[in-house]
Formats: sequence, C-alpha cells, structure tokens
Amino acid sequence: MPNELNAPADVHAVVHAMGAAARAASRELARAPTAAKNRALEAAAEALVDREKTILAANARDVKAARSEGHDDAFIDRLTLTGKAIGAMAEGLREIAKLPDPVGEVANLAYRPSGIQVGRMRVPLGVIAIIYESRPNVTADAGGLCLKSGNACILRGGSEALNSNQAIAACLAHGLKAAGLPESAIQLVDTPDRAVVGELVVLEQFIDAIVPRGGKGLIERIAKEARVPVIKHLDGICHVYIDDRADAAKAVAIADNAKTQRYGTCNTMETLLVAQAIAPKVLPEIGRIFAQKKVEMRCCPESREILRKAGVKGAKAATEEDFRTEYLAPVVSIKMLPGIDEAIAHIAEYGSQHTDAIVTEDLARAQRFLREVDSSSVMVNASTRLADGYEYGLGAEIGISTNKLHARGPVGLEGLTSQKWIVLGDGHLRH
Amino acid sequence: MPNELNAPADVHAVVHAMGAAARAASRELARAPTAAKNRALEAAAEALVDREKTILAANARDVKAARSEGHDDAFIDRLTLTGKAIGAMAEGLREIAKLPDPVGEVANLAYRPSGIQVGRMRVPLGVIAIIYESRPNVTADAGGLCLKSGNACILRGGSEALNSNQAIAACLAHGLKAAGLPESAIQLVDTPDRAVVGELVVLEQFIDAIVPRGGKGLIERIAKEARVPVIKHLDGICHVYIDDRADAAKAVAIADNAKTQRYGTCNTMETLLVAQAIAPKVLPEIGRIFAQKKVEMRCCPESREILRKAGVKGAKAATEEDFRTEYLAPVVSIKMLPGIDEAIAHIAEYGSQHTDAIVTEDLARAQRFLREVDSSSVMVNASTRLADGYEYGLGAEIGISTNKLHARGPVGLEGLTSQKWIVLGDGHLRH
Repeated sequence: MPNELNAPADVHAVVHAMGAAARAASRELARAPTAAKNRALEAAAEALVDREKTILAANARDVKAARSEGHDDAFIDRLTLTGKAIGAMAEGLREIAKLPDPVGEVANLAYRPSGIQVGRMRVPLGVIAIIYESRPNVTADAGGLCLKSGNACILRGGSEALNSNQAIAACLAHGLKAAGLPESAIQLVDTPDRAVVGELVVLEQFIDAIVPRGGKGLIERIAKEARVPVIKHLDGICHVYIDDRADAAKAVAIADNAKTQRYGTCNTMETLLVAQAIAPKVLPEIGRIFAQKKVEMRCCPESREILRKAGVKGAKAATEEDFRTEYLAPVVSIKMLPGIDEAIAHIAEYGSQHTDAIVTEDLARAQRFLREVDSSSVMVNASTRLADGYEYGLGAEIGISTNKLHARGPVGLEGLTSQKWIVLGDGHLRH
Repeated sequence: MPNELNAPADVHAVVHAMGAAARAASRELARAPTAAKNRALEAAAEALVDREKTILAANARDVKAARSEGHDDAFIDRLTLTGKAIGAMAEGLREIAKLPDPVGEVANLAYRPSGIQVGRMRVPLGVIAIIYESRPNVTADAGGLCLKSGNACILRGGSEALNSNQAIAACLAHGLKAAGLPESAIQLVDTPDRAVVGELVVLEQFIDAIVPRGGKGLIERIAKEARVPVIKHLDGICHVYIDDRADAAKAVAIADNAKTQRYGTCNTMETLLVAQAIAPKVLPEIGRIFAQKKVEMRCCPESREILRKAGVKGAKAATEEDFRTEYLAPVVSIKMLPGIDEAIAHIAEYGSQHTDAIVTEDLARAQRFLREVDSSSVMVNASTRLADGYEYGLGAEIGISTNKLHARGPVGLEGLTSQKWIVLGDGHLRH
C-alpha cells in the first residue's frame, strides 16, 4: 500500500485500493478477540516509547519544513511533538486498552410472545476515515479508538505532519502485527494530494463513516461533498443562563469558569444570559472578573447599563451578529432576559445545539431546561467546559458531534459502533 | 398553510414555510406531556372511525382517477381503502397511544469522580419528513409514530392518494386540536408538484431526518439528492444458511417459511445456502416443496445436481447476477458451500446487510454467525420473515433501516429519537 501511494498514481485508484483493503481488514477486526486488540494497543504504546527518537526526528523534519513555508506559531505549536507528548500518546493507547470492549455487547435480550428471543448486539461501524489537520497525536488516538471498537480506519492527516504521522502509524502497524491482526486495519494516507479527501468522502462502498477533525472550513467542505455519513462537529455557541433563582456564588463561578478556563475550545461559553431579577446582583461581579481577565464584553443595552452603573468599564454594545458568533477568544456576549422562557427561546434561535447550562436552585426550572433545550449536552449548575469525553467517563473521545442522528456530544468507543438486532429461535416461523 | 399550497406558488417558498412551521411546532411537541400526545392519538382514532364514510368517499375519488389513468391492479389494490382498513388505522393509533413514551427517558445517570452526575436523555429528532407512495394508511401510521415520539412531521404521500391522505390528515389535525397541540405538528403536503421532494430533502435548516417509504427507485433518488440524513431501506437480499449441524426438520421448515410465507416482502429469503455435508439430506425435500409451490429454483451446479438426482424437476442454473438479486417473487437462488466460513463470506460479498439466518444446533457456530454477519438482523434457527417491528416488540414500525449509523433494522419510536447528554452539578467547574 505505501509503495502504491508514493507513486504519482491515479488518486482514485489508490484510494479505492485502500478502501478495499480496509473493508477486508474490517471483517477480520470485527471478529478479533478483545485480548488481541488490547495486545495490539499495548505493543503500539511500547513502540511509541521505544521509538521516541525516531518520531522526534521525523517531527523535526516536519517542523522545519513548516517553518520554512511560513506557518504561524500557533500552527507550529500544534505540529510540534515532545518526549512528553509521545509519552502521553502511549499512555492514551494503554488507557484505551483498559476500556471495556463495546463489540459484541448484547442488550435487552428478551423473549417475545412468539417464543423467539430478540435483543441487540453492539457491532463496529466497519471502516472509518479520519480526516484531520496538523496535530500528529490524532494519529495514535484515532487509530487506537478505531482499533478497540473493531473498526478498520483510514487516517488522512495534514500533509505538513506527514513524517510525524508516518512514524506514529508505523508504531500502530507494529502493534497490529505483534497481535496477529491485519496491518491494513490502520492505514495512513501518505500522498499529500488534496484530491484524496474528495475521493474518501464519496467512497460509500468501502467507508461507513467519516470523522473530520479540524477547523470549520475543513468540516464544512467535507459535510458538503460527502456521500458517506459524517460524524461532525460544527459550531459551539454555548450558553450559560443565570436564572433568577440561581445561587449567586455558583452563578459567578460558573460564568467565570465557562468563559475563561480556556478560550479556544468548543465548549467555552460564548453568550451569557441573565434573568432580569438577578442581573443587578450577579452581573457587576462577573463583569469585574471579565474586565480583570481582559475579556471583551458585548452587551445588550440593559446589561450594559447595569455594568456601567456598577462602574465596570469597557462593556460594548452587542450587535445581533454577536449572539450568533463563536468567538473562540476572550470575548463574550451578554444579554438580560425576563426569565427561563426567553432563555430557552434565545438558545433555540441563536445556539448551535452544542452545550448549554442553566444555573438555578429551582427543581422545576432545572427539569424544564434539561428537557426543552435541544443541545448535545444540557447542564444544570455546571460549567459548559465539563462537556468532554474524559469528564463524561468515555475514557477517550474521537471528537464531539453536533449531529442529531447517531452519536451526539462527545464520541467515544460507543459512538464508533452501532447495534444490530439478534434473534434466537428454535425453528421459529412467521405465521 | 393549505391555502398557500393550493396556489400555483413558488414551491421553494411553500416548502420553506412548511419547514419553518414544523420547526416551531416541534419545539412545542418536544415538551408536550405524554397525556396530551396520547389524547391526540385517541381523538384522531375516534375521528377516523366517525368519518369513515367521508374517508371512503375521498378514497373512491382517488381510485376512480387512478383507474382512468390506467394504473395496474396492484397499484389500485395498494390505494384502495375499506372500512376494515380504516378500523385498522384507528386501532394502530390506539396501539401507539399505549406504547411507553420514549421522550425524556434518562439512562445511565451516574456520578463521575468530579462529582457531576452524567447521563443521557432520550429526545425527539425534531422534524421528520416522510415521503411515501400510494398506501394511504402510511399517513395515519407515520403521523402517529412521529407524534408519540415528539417529532413534528411533514407527510408527502403519492399524488394519486391525495384525497384519501387529506381526509386522514384531517383526522390527525382534529386529534391535535382536541389535545391542545399545534396542528402544524403534522402537515400534509397537498401540492402534487414533484419538485416538492427535491426541496424537502435539502431543507437541512428545518428537517432533521427523511424517511422514504416506497420502491427502490424513490429511495435511491432521495438518498442521492438528500442533504438531510435519510433513514432508508434499500435491498433485502436475505439468506438462510443451513449448517451441516442443522436439525433437518427445522432447516426445511425455515427455508420454506422464509421463502414462501410471502414473496414480495423485504425480509423474504432470496438465497438459500446449504453446507455440503447436509445438502443431500435437506435439499431434495426443500426442492420438492418449492417445486410444488411453483418457486423457481436457480442453482449452483452442485445443488442442481442433487436436486436432479432426487428427481426434483425444474431447477435451473444460477448466474452470478442471481445471487445479487432481490427477486421479491417466487424465485430463489440456491448455493452449496463447504461450511460456515464460506457462508459468512458469501453473505458479506453478495448480501445487502438486511436479514440473514443460520440453522444450526452448534452453539459455537451460532455465536460466530451472530457476531460476524454484519446485517441489521441476524438470526439463529428462525425464519427471516420474523424481522419485523411487531415481532420485535416495537409495537409499530415506521420502516426498516439498512443504514449502519443511527437506527438499524425495524425502526419504531426509539429510532425516531436520539439521546442528548445531561449533566447535573452543584456549582461544578472544570479544573
């Protein structure tokens, strides 16, 4: 496979061949014993540690080339590996090995009046293509998660990280081989041709799902062109609504944490909604924290007035567009509302169905918010930053999905599987 | 809405308006109490019974028009309603009312080490468009299932059934109104313009899933054009594999039932696979039954020879193409194989991942077949004809899905929902 790919060959033929090899490998992997998959993960982890120098050397070549091509510091930062990062990748694979195997799990097997037993068995999706940008650790994480969930995968990383990705993929291949599993269960596309992505996303015959990881531009392009189902993450316009029955101290702490714990993540709060009756009590303190942390506040007239009166400086006027914006930066929109009805309506209108939280001590309002807000994660008295595979106990996540069908929210091993029906009879017929 | 649709208006604008109304209604429906949804279903059932004469008169107009347009008997048969059929529709709605409400069901709520409780809540998909052909009973069934699962729906039936569908949809509207639910929760498209379908399948903004019900041509067209996820059913090339450790009597009965209980259904066996060692014992009897029931047999050379020697007449030679064909008719392909490995490989190569069964008394082989055959329903010692929502205990089904993501196999209320994450904290932050 690698030889074919290095050739300046017909991209279509190359991708087709990888797809066919992945499909064949997926059948072997679907029936692979849990112990063999774990052995492969552990051997790959060992190889990562053993080959640290080789991987760092490969990465240094990528970083040098990226610098000479004029990529910015943030890009170089995402691309650069360290000994610690390689150790973390190895540890990540070992953690995946420790997770329970979802494949073959049978749920709800029960007798029906006809005498048959009917239940559902969890099965791999088949072949998953992961399309990602400059972070080389995705190679290990995504490969490990697909392997454990019994899926063959085709990894298509950024061309700038090709040397690093190849060095990491070689460790995964070593693990597969050590466990007697087909090496084509994890294939890395090593041609930089951009047409590869276009070919992958329409290869319905061999690929069951696409997981794009990267900027919004990449994801939108893939979603637009894909014929294969895409497990995707689009905007994260997350809200915290402070209800008038909120505990003020919790409200302030959650608003602060949801906005400032990290700015560039998808589960960071972008809009703070505050009930009118509590706004004068909580907004000044929140405003002072934001001002002190240099978070730009874009406010509705009412909230701006409250901040102004309280002597908080720098609150600007928000535009309609601000409430539809995922800043991914130290900027926040603030809006005052009469109460929970308007908050739920605002989130339905302006939100992106990602993660939204209410701060309230009122049980009925908490229940209403949980039921009525249609987002992949809905929270009560907790920071939106907690929307995360590790926090949720998935062990590891391949991404966060904003799809409504199949997997929603953080996607771990279970999101890479589906359930088939199984029927056990003893000569049962339809009458 | 109906007035707009009767106008020779811009189809795009009309469909857009229906979508917007459906989205608004979906928000109300998502929070509707179970009792209100059940009341609506019962009132609709009552209206169906009360208005039997009106519905039959509307149907008679459709049937008359269809006859004058030269539609064949099978078409007229699917289109025609009777008092009994209307009673069955009403009973179907009452049965849906009796099913447990899937919306709001919380699963796996558990404490995480951080102190937050994390679980999943079942929620409606939102807005579902059902695109179907000539059977008017789909209007009641699909409308009822969407309503109970908290989804607004847009129903697009065949233009030949428009009068019938309108009369039925009026009963559903009556039910919604009686229960204080928004009437636009169930909207029937009443313009016959074919461009409507093309508009619906790309209306991502307002529609969360499309369920096409009809012939393969319709489904393929929709799947090809759709930007909205399609819960679809393509081929049903179902297999029964008779293992050499099968009980011969069960094998004969299952092969007979799977093929001949009904010919035109998607879960009917199209290919019979028989292990070499048992073929001389079971094939002659099965062949005699098929010959007697006038089922045309298209055989591999080995199975044909066994039938010939046993004096079973009429077994023809199968072509490669026969094994890839969904006959939906009294025709069956027959192939002899060495054993289970080859059977699993044949199904992977020629099957359509719909429903496949093994007949065996051997536990290990049964387990292997269940795990390794990647179909939406996999069975042991049972007829493929049992792959059905009622047989599986779903109560009712909106269709059978051959998708791998989201719902697989018979799709009932649960298949019309998804799960969101819910997080309960008490001021919890991310550290």
